[in-house]
Amino acid sequence: MIVPPHILRMLEHLRATLTESDARERLRRRAAVTAPPLRPVRQASAESIDGLWRRIEADVAVAGRELIADPATLGRAAEYSSNIENLIGTVKVPVGVIGPVRINGLNANGDYFIPLATTEAALVASYGRGADIVSRAGGASVALLAEGVLRTPAFLFEDLVQSGLFVDWVTRVVDDLKRTAEETTRYGKLVSLEPVIDNDIVFLLCRYTTGDASGQNMVTIATDALCQFILAQSPLKPRRWFIEANFSGDKKASHLGILSGRGRKVSASVTLSAELVRSHLHAEIDAMLDYGRVANLGALLSGQLGAQAHYANGLAAFYIATGQDAACVSESAVGFTRMEARDGGLFLSATLPNILVGSVGGGTRLPSQAAALRIMGLEGAGKAAALAEIVAVLCLCGEISIIGAMAAGHFARAHRKLARMRKSP
Amino acid sequence: MIVPPHILRMLEHLRATLTESDARERLRRRAAVTAPPLRPVRQASAESIDGLWRRIEADVAVAGRELIADPATLGRAAEYSSNIENLIGTVKVPVGVIGPVRINGLNANGDYFIPLATTEAALVASYGRGADIVSRAGGASVALLAEGVLRTPAFLFEDLVQSGLFVDWVTRVVDDLKRTAEETTRYGKLVSLEPVIDNDIVFLLCRYTTGDASGQNMVTIATDALCQFILAQSPLKPRRWFIEANFSGDKKASHLGILSGRGRKVSASVTLSAELVRSHLHAEIDAMLDYGRVANLGALLSGQLGAQAHYANGLAAFYIATGQDAACVSESAVGFTRMEARDGGLFLSATLPNILVGSVGGGTRLPSQAAALRIMGLEGAGKAAALAEIVAVLCLCGEISIIGAMAAGHFARAHRKLARMRKSP
Amino acid sequence: MIVPPHILRMLEHLRATLTESDARERLRRRAAVTAPPLRPVRQASAESIDGLWRRIEADVAVAGRELIADPATLGRAAEYSSNIENLIGTVKVPVGVIGPVRINGLNANGDYFIPLATTEAALVASYGRGADIVSRAGGASVALLAEGVLRTPAFLFEDLVQSGLFVDWVTRVVDDLKRTAEETTRYGKLVSLEPVIDNDIVFLLCRYTTGDASGQNMVTIATDALCQFILAQSPLKPRRWFIEANFSGDKKASHLGILSGRGRKVSASVTLSAELVRSHLHAEIDAMLDYGRVANLGALLSGQLGAQAHYANGLAAFYIATGQDAACVSESAVGFTRMEARDGGLFLSATLPNILVGSVGGGTRLPSQAAALRIMGLEGAGKAAALAEIVAVLCLCGEISIIGAMAAGHFARAHRKLARMRKSP
Amino acid sequence: MIVPPHILRMLEHLRATLTESDARERLRRRAAVTAPPLRPVRQASAESIDGLWRRIEADVAVAGRELIADPATLGRAAEYSSNIENLIGTVKVPVGVIGPVRINGLNANGDYFIPLATTEAALVASYGRGADIVSRAGGASVALLAEGVLRTPAFLFEDLVQSGLFVDWVTRVVDDLKRTAEETTRYGKLVSLEPVIDNDIVFLLCRYTTGDASGQNMVTIATDALCQFILAQSPLKPRRWFIEANFSGDKKASHLGILSGRGRKVSASVTLSAELVRSHLHAEIDAMLDYGRVANLGALLSGQLGAQAHYANGLAAFYIATGQDAACVSESAVGFTRMEARDGGLFLSATLPNILVGSVGGGTRLPSQAAALRIMGLEGAGKAAALAEIVAVLCLCGEISIIGAMAAGHFARAHRKLARMRKSP
Repeated sequence: MIVPPHILRMLEHLRATLTESDARERLRRRAAVTAPPLRPVRQASAESIDGLWRRIEADVAVAGRELIADPATLGRAAEYSSNIENLIGTVKVPVGVIGPVRINGLNANGDYFIPLATTEAALVASYGRGADIVSRAGGASVALLAEGVLRTPAFLFEDLVQSGLFVDWVTRVVDDLKRTAEETTRYGKLVSLEPVIDNDIVFLLCRYTTGDASGQNMVTIATDALCQFILAQSPLKPRRWFIEANFSGDKKASHLGILSGRGRKVSASVTLSAELVRSHLHAEIDAMLDYGRVANLGALLSGQLGAQAHYANGLAAFYIATGQDAACVSESAVGFTRMEARDGGLFLSATLPNILVGSVGGGTRLPSQAAALRIMGLEGAGKAAALAEIVAVLCLCGEISIIGAMAAGHFARAHRKLARMRKSP
Repeated sequence: MIVPPHILRMLEHLRATLTESDARERLRRRAAVTAPPLRPVRQASAESIDGLWRRIEADVAVAGRELIADPATLGRAAEYSSNIENLIGTVKVPVGVIGPVRINGLNANGDYFIPLATTEAALVASYGRGADIVSRAGGASVALLAEGVLRTPAFLFEDLVQSGLFVDWVTRVVDDLKRTAEETTRYGKLVSLEPVIDNDIVFLLCRYTTGDASGQNMVTIATDALCQFILAQSPLKPRRWFIEANFSGDKKASHLGILSGRGRKVSASVTLSAELVRSHLHAEIDAMLDYGRVANLGALLSGQLGAQAHYANGLAAFYIATGQDAACVSESAVGFTRMEARDGGLFLSATLPNILVGSVGGGTRLPSQAAALRIMGLEGAGKAAALAEIVAVLCLCGEISIIGAMAAGHFARAHRKLARMRKSP
Repeated sequence: MIVPPHILRMLEHLRATLTESDARERLRRRAAVTAPPLRPVRQASAESIDGLWRRIEADVAVAGRELIADPATLGRAAEYSSNIENLIGTVKVPVGVIGPVRINGLNANGDYFIPLATTEAALVASYGRGADIVSRAGGASVALLAEGVLRTPAFLFEDLVQSGLFVDWVTRVVDDLKRTAEETTRYGKLVSLEPVIDNDIVFLLCRYTTGDASGQNMVTIATDALCQFILAQSPLKPRRWFIEANFSGDKKASHLGILSGRGRKVSASVTLSAELVRSHLHAEIDAMLDYGRVANLGALLSGQLGAQAHYANGLAAFYIATGQDAACVSESAVGFTRMEARDGGLFLSATLPNILVGSVGGGTRLPSQAAALRIMGLEGAGKAAALAEIVAVLCLCGEISIIGAMAAGHFARAHRKLARMRKSP
Repeated sequence: MIVPPHILRMLEHLRATLTESDARERLRRRAAVTAPPLRPVRQASAESIDGLWRRIEADVAVAGRELIADPATLGRAAEYSSNIENLIGTVKVPVGVIGPVRINGLNANGDYFIPLATTEAALVASYGRGADIVSRAGGASVALLAEGVLRTPAFLFEDLVQSGLFVDWVTRVVDDLKRTAEETTRYGKLVSLEPVIDNDIVFLLCRYTTGDASGQNMVTIATDALCQFILAQSPLKPRRWFIEANFSGDKKASHLGILSGRGRKVSASVTLSAELVRSHLHAEIDAMLDYGRVANLGALLSGQLGAQAHYANGLAAFYIATGQDAACVSESAVGFTRMEARDGGLFLSATLPNILVGSVGGGTRLPSQAAALRIMGLEGAGKAAALAEIVAVLCLCGEISIIGAMAAGHFARAHRKLARMRKSP
């Protein structure tokens, strides 16, 4: 049989559970829903929350409404209103803490406890182990290297000549475009504008610095103003325009993000002695270097962007704990972990070109998230660069721990042990 | 000046704020931390939480401990213990609800309210708008098409001959390997094993189905058993082995995930009438199709994996609300949104090859997360396939809304309006 | 100025040389060409060649027709006719030879001279240097590991249900499909058929072995027969079908090619002593290993598929010399060069998953190309596997030489020296 | 059986033909070759060619030496000497011609016959068909949009601080670096220099314009000078440096090439009437647009860089015919073919960011290659831009023809018919 085995297995399962007419019936289009949709609620209150739950409970038996709509949340409904619509409560994500991690950074400099919100057993323990080793090694060096958030509008013209003439005009008025964009924001600066032509389509890659915010909304609003200026002033009228068309790396891993950076680019490193590797990772440096070689090949074979083991774990836990945009894990979890033998020890670095964090804006002012930021002393204006540096060191800690576990053959055992209290599914 | 402008700007900023000796001083290695690291706490209690906070507060002034370590969380510390180490409380992520969404799926079939946890204004409103339109169109068709989670151990040999002989042996004992792996789990099944040789390195791509769990731990433990069998029995002794080396798509976007699928592959679609597009999206079908063409080009130009607008937003919000592994947004946020003119209307589809969800395991039994699952009637065994189908429809709703906004030129305005209560940063 | 400097420079150049009306005038559509196009000539002769040249020379003054249409070529016009249309002569590509290269392969085993056709100075010298070193090291080990050429038809249906039912049907008749496809060819075998669904579209990845031909035409014809069977027999009628839609890796680098292999997958390796590296590459092993680390990072940063230095050079020269399809350099030039310190020496391997070579078919029977194959003793049936192994060793030789030159800092000097007779442009 | 079928088949074949000891014996390292390697011959002559053949024929019976070492080639041995080492003759690649193609370009403007060197039946006929249609449509619009060739040296330092200080220094002396680089060449200009830091490694992306040469050697020599300046002058001493480390897109498809362009970026387009599509492609516009949608998906699913059908075919044939570097097909065969319905007709465009052509240098002065350039009137200085535009139009012609054939279901038939004279292998 020349059909791959896992596909046959899936088909057998479907054939056993489903007739053709079942399938047709289940997937066919129904009548339009006539029940009114939920009315968008922007200013939440205990009443609006109750209203939404009544509506839900009219259809579904939900035991435990109060687990989401607890009294404390109800009391703070207004506070949450600028961050969400149709609020029905809060989900409680457990937070663990690691540290103190010694960080020798341009912007983050000192010993930090780091809060991590996750529901995955072993994650906090693993990052904590890496943090402990980094601290025993005298801390990780780290620096913010670049920053910039893209927003890339697209303009469609009749033909290539119009595209060319449009680009010509844009570069002549680029100072006006910069001024117009920057008038919409106190902190955003348009620092680069690069036109890209594909025949009748012109993209303008607009790159902004965004102060202490992660800045995605800021650059959208600024770019909209820039586009309105173009639409009003350009002698070449586009037949269509879009403020964005998948060419800014927003909410997705991309090579663009690797090459141009998205958000903040940070690099962190540490050198571990052979003794520390042995005593605390229970691994040998040679095995870790071998892992590095094989994992590099694995990254290339699997068509991964960058090459790293599990940045996403630390990033998601940190982003959720501190009110960052967790969807940005998609683009942030791209980077480069490297290792090298150095004077009998092991040099490790982690470079992340796409860290999206802010110390203001987004979820950073929500009560528990702000408290989490305060654990690091990084709430409010002036702290975004330090936050980004902590993120990079955090990811470095996670890489040290997992690579050590892989090299020692302990990876599966750690997961078995730390998930021991759960029934294995 | 031939250096790009944004790089010059960054350098100017650094030169203005930092001397060379500052930089050297801040990044140099410090003494080892001598303070003891946090002791790993696995069985949390109100006392252990208090102990951790005391330790933190000894170093940092944290106003608002109780925002994280609230009484309800303290009372449930033991419940959280199987999901996290070093628990200090919970972060409260606001949850909004959208729906009812009419879903015509193989596994999810009916009208659903969907909970979304996010701190990003406009997200719930935007997905809700898409859900409303889908429901007015008679619902989205959706089906789970494939499932499988990879774990890919690597074995290093002396040379190519050993690699080849090892593969030969592996395929001869593949039934033993399957049995050994499956003995570690009640639900996991090894459904495919594919060897890949790169000279002296052999990878074994082990693909499992994982029942109603998302299954990452399950496949790790099963593969560890498989590896132990190999190490004990193989006539060819590897000089090194690793249970994983970046070749399973775990926690990272990859082409491997696109081609082999990771977790559950689901495809959803809907056809919207021109009238519905006009009345509820305030857009024209032609503009949306033009957006599709341009966005496809944008995806290719930016080196995105797949082509879609913002699956990550819906995924992150859904994963956090329902106790899934939010780090998996990194791999799940890859997929294919397509549009086509159909009989005067607009066909849209969203296909996600890498949905990682479970209705058991992970954070699904935590109090508020389980309550969120109950809103959809999808708590517990037998519900993972339906959850995956809901995720795909959710992403389709998000695409409809954002593409409509792009096509109508409303995207920036929606963000301005819904984030209006925040001071613009 | 925030526009990147090279873009400004290009615009300045255009502004200086071109007015807007020039641009509009030059690019505007002209009248249809009324002169008759060249009549397609399939059976070439001295007369047909003369006719084409007269037509060309009526429009353009071409000095040196006889350099292309030389007497020997005119005399062999009929021989060329099965390989080209509208023949006007031949282009003479200089051929250099390297070797003897000691090859310890499953299929190629012995000492080989290898012919390389190129117009790039230094290429033959560089590959020859690598070959010399490999031979001094006792030869390269090499083995053909896998083979298969994909052709992937696409079928468009009304919806997902039809797609699913179609796949169900296809897997039920897969033996008929295999038989139908294989009836069109004496040597091709359909060894795998994998369906991939994206909602209303079904792709069937058909993988063939192709005997001693490279096989692209063979698999096209076989798959056309398979498709005709489907169109005639399938209870589900596609609304559209295409025999191919960019999903087989044909004539393009792709991750599909990396993961599934295209053509023949071969891996070659050699271990060099430190002394040999020093005496013949004038480099240090440590420097070469450092290069390997940095080049791996460079490959990942630049979004290269695989990681290697310059396979394309050897591949193009070999393909042209031996009558292979030179366009396949696009997909073949993807692979993995690895290095490792081993017992004081340096292990190097080259693994190419996408080698497209045949010892029959294509240009292999043309006079000079067949003579080139005879230099290796590899003309005609039964030699394709050996050819593929020689290609991999050739690429390994090229990597050794260039990496050595990079590590020794000689790369630019070699190019300066070997191109010395040309006026530097 | 859970091992994929094609892998089992390969293993069965190996087991049937090979014992374990055979495999071990064939792949084991042999003694060092003691026969002297071919002496590098740089100044070729009839005598040197005879010497090489004698050496080859001492080992191998090669019937037909004169097919490669024909009298005309022997007479021009010296002419070939600046392009190759160890010359033994020439391989004769058949050349077909298409046209006249009407080209409405910024630099190429008029009707052109285009020579194509290939051994693949149907290629010239297919491109000729596309050319005929383009000419009947009034010609293709085309423009050179950008140019630049990267060479990217890497410098390794002790740590991140040194990397940062090095970049600081580089940007301060960038005018000196530019001057130093440009002193090595009459035509090359360093138009951009972009530093990229990954912790202790600094890459400098040096982008040059290269006059009428394709320029790879020119930029290598210029960058070597730049590096020597750095090594002599930099206050920060790198512990290692490499003139290149896989970060310039040289001889490989890469996302870097897509985003930064490599060589010349050109875009071409044409609009075909429905009648022309029907009468000359025998296809329907709707079917071609459907193909476009599906092929875009295929490109994304297969992890192709860009999305196009078969640029490589035309590129390889043109590069070989005109003395370009055929190895550059690897990077040039990346681009974007788009289609759109326009006023009842079909708009098609082809955009190639990485065309590597010169009208001087490389193989352009060799006898038959120069004659091929003269067919287009594009030999010598001042013609590179026009050459690049012709390449883009050529690729557009090829896309039109193949997409038409796919849409009409004729693709396989054309190949069967045009390869009819060959025995099907």
